[in-house]
Amino acid sequence: MLGVRAARLRSAELEELIRRDPRGFRISTGDRPTGRLHLGHYFGTLHNRVRLQNLGVELFVVVADYQVLTDRDVADRLAEHVEELVLDYLAVGVDPARSTIFAHSAVPALNQLLLPFLSLVSVAELSRNPTVKDEIAHSRRSAVSGLMFTYPAHQAADILFCKANLVPVGQDQLPHLELSRVVARRLNNRYGGGRAVLPEPEALLSAAPLLLGTDGAKMSKSRGNAIALAAGADETARLIRGARTDAERHITYAPATRPEVSSLVLLTALCLGRDPRQVADDIGGAGASALKAAATEAVNEHLAPMRARRAMYAEDRGHVRRVLREGGERANAIAETTLREVRAAMGTLY
Amino acid sequence: MLGVRAARLRSAELEELIRRDPRGFRISTGDRPTGRLHLGHYFGTLHNRVRLQNLGVELFVVVADYQVLTDRDVADRLAEHVEELVLDYLAVGVDPARSTIFAHSAVPALNQLLLPFLSLVSVAELSRNPTVKDEIAHSRRSAVSGLMFTYPAHQAADILFCKANLVPVGQDQLPHLELSRVVARRLNNRYGGGRAVLPEPEALLSAAPLLLGTDGAKMSKSRGNAIALAAGADETARLIRGARTDAERHITYAPATRPEVSSLVLLTALCLGRDPRQVADDIGGAGASALKAAATEAVNEHLAPMRARRAMYAEDRGHVRRVLREGGERANAIAETTLREVRAAMGTLY
Repeated sequence: MLGVRAARLRSAELEELIRRDPRGFRISTGDRPTGRLHLGHYFGTLHNRVRLQNLGVELFVVVADYQVLTDRDVADRLAEHVEELVLDYLAVGVDPARSTIFAHSAVPALNQLLLPFLSLVSVAELSRNPTVKDEIAHSRRSAVSGLMFTYPAHQAADILFCKANLVPVGQDQLPHLELSRVVARRLNNRYGGGRAVLPEPEALLSAAPLLLGTDGAKMSKSRGNAIALAAGADETARLIRGARTDAERHITYAPATRPEVSSLVLLTALCLGRDPRQVADDIGGAGASALKAAATEAVNEHLAPMRARRAMYAEDRGHVRRVLREGGERANAIAETTLREVRAAMGTLY
Repeated sequence: MLGVRAARLRSAELEELIRRDPRGFRISTGDRPTGRLHLGHYFGTLHNRVRLQNLGVELFVVVADYQVLTDRDVADRLAEHVEELVLDYLAVGVDPARSTIFAHSAVPALNQLLLPFLSLVSVAELSRNPTVKDEIAHSRRSAVSGLMFTYPAHQAADILFCKANLVPVGQDQLPHLELSRVVARRLNNRYGGGRAVLPEPEALLSAAPLLLGTDGAKMSKSRGNAIALAAGADETARLIRGARTDAERHITYAPATRPEVSSLVLLTALCLGRDPRQVADDIGGAGASALKAAATEAVNEHLAPMRARRAMYAEDRGHVRRVLREGGERANAIAETTLREVRAAMGTLY
């Protein structure tokens, strides 16, 4: 197990350590239940989570339901969004027998860690968090909800409640993880007398491929330019047929100068497990329509088993709820243990 | 029971309602465990709590242990401070058979209410709270801890977790209660469809007498000018002997012009259950030393049974811990019910 560690490991070294001793690692990840996940999520993070799970790493996946309460439209259909998210997890291969899927609202002991953690961070540190900063930029600072403002501390609880020592992140998410490390370090120093009550989690940087949406902008649920994992084969074909390309007939892989075409090439390559340059070469002068046909076929074939699994579980909502309930119980038992250790360190067990 | 109510009741009307139907009321109060309580606390609030309890009102008393974590000196001796506070409660007559004494850290379901409540208040509203404002004034805003900043939402949880419909407050604490009312109202409107999931608590304004410390400033633990409930008779005599008075021999009750002397008169009168003007008249030309002798005797006699009770319980720490544990269990069972209702309203029971 990794513990408190001064220097941070590079991801290549971490991958080597994981291969040698997968059971020495525990990963925390999660998503906000705001709708169905799409190919951007899949190749960006879900695929990597399942890969690590299948290597033998212990995986915790939080459905961050409390974090969407401030979004009125989402909150109104929360139960539905939560079930859709769990269905997506099951579809891509998160295995509830090995991994723990749970909702924030079902794990009181995790949420209670928010209080000691909030005592360890300042208003300034919370304000500096990129997600909070974004939110402040989008509305006025004063209008930001207390829940959004304290989100970084809640995120630290998501990671530290199970003593996760590894968090897969993109480069832009590193500041998030940093505050969790700060919380663990301060708690250890302040209440643990330097003892590692909580580990400082390491970042596992993933070079997530950037998939563009069908309009050439970043793929995003809210832009309506995304191909959902749950989309049917025909819907997928229609979406890809309507995707933006460019005027040059010969297909090449040049993300910087031909972003839309290159994103379709990349998507095809990711689905086929091939090099995008080779995929582009194979299509070459056959042009955009051949590229789209290849992409459609690759996506539909790659997603077929997941879509079948998703459809199967969608028929069995009892199973979905059981996964959530059992995951919640497992997560809470672990959070209870951590909370007890934290309270013992703070001297609040009377 | 009071529920959602547009106009606020005056305290005289509330007192009348309480006398008629004490079981229709539930009160939430509490203190931060930062050391032994003193006469200022006693006549300011403890006395009133016990009076209401003895009328038949259900009383909840929270030991706000999470709220002192940011004070290093206090946190280091937290368990001790918590036990001292419980001893003070038992001494003044809070009866664990009828009232519930519990610590924040022991009631996960209460703390979990913090999350939905934080989603209902803005950063601006948190900043406007007098306690938070004070803290920002004392340090820099950016240095204020996240826990202090979110204190108003936590206070709303302290009140609403048990659906308290009555909160005894001084005039200066009204803004605190207001945010709890806002949280209840918003939760009812936003998630309850207007149904009263949570009651909007009423303020029971108490005209708490202002007792000055022995140096003429406000009585306060940290100034060392306070007479602790737990102080011995000799210590009390010594403290009162050293209290500041003024150069005028003839004793009168004139709080505006003779604050120090009048505070001693008031203290004596409160202990004797008499009118302060009559107490001053009786002493008259006998001067400050006679006043101090009268005050000492009155305080020591009034506190004697409480001090005896305190000494008895101090010998039985097992009892103190049992009171806290059983109170915590009772509070948590109630908080669980409220949390379940709140989650049902929010649609987060999957």
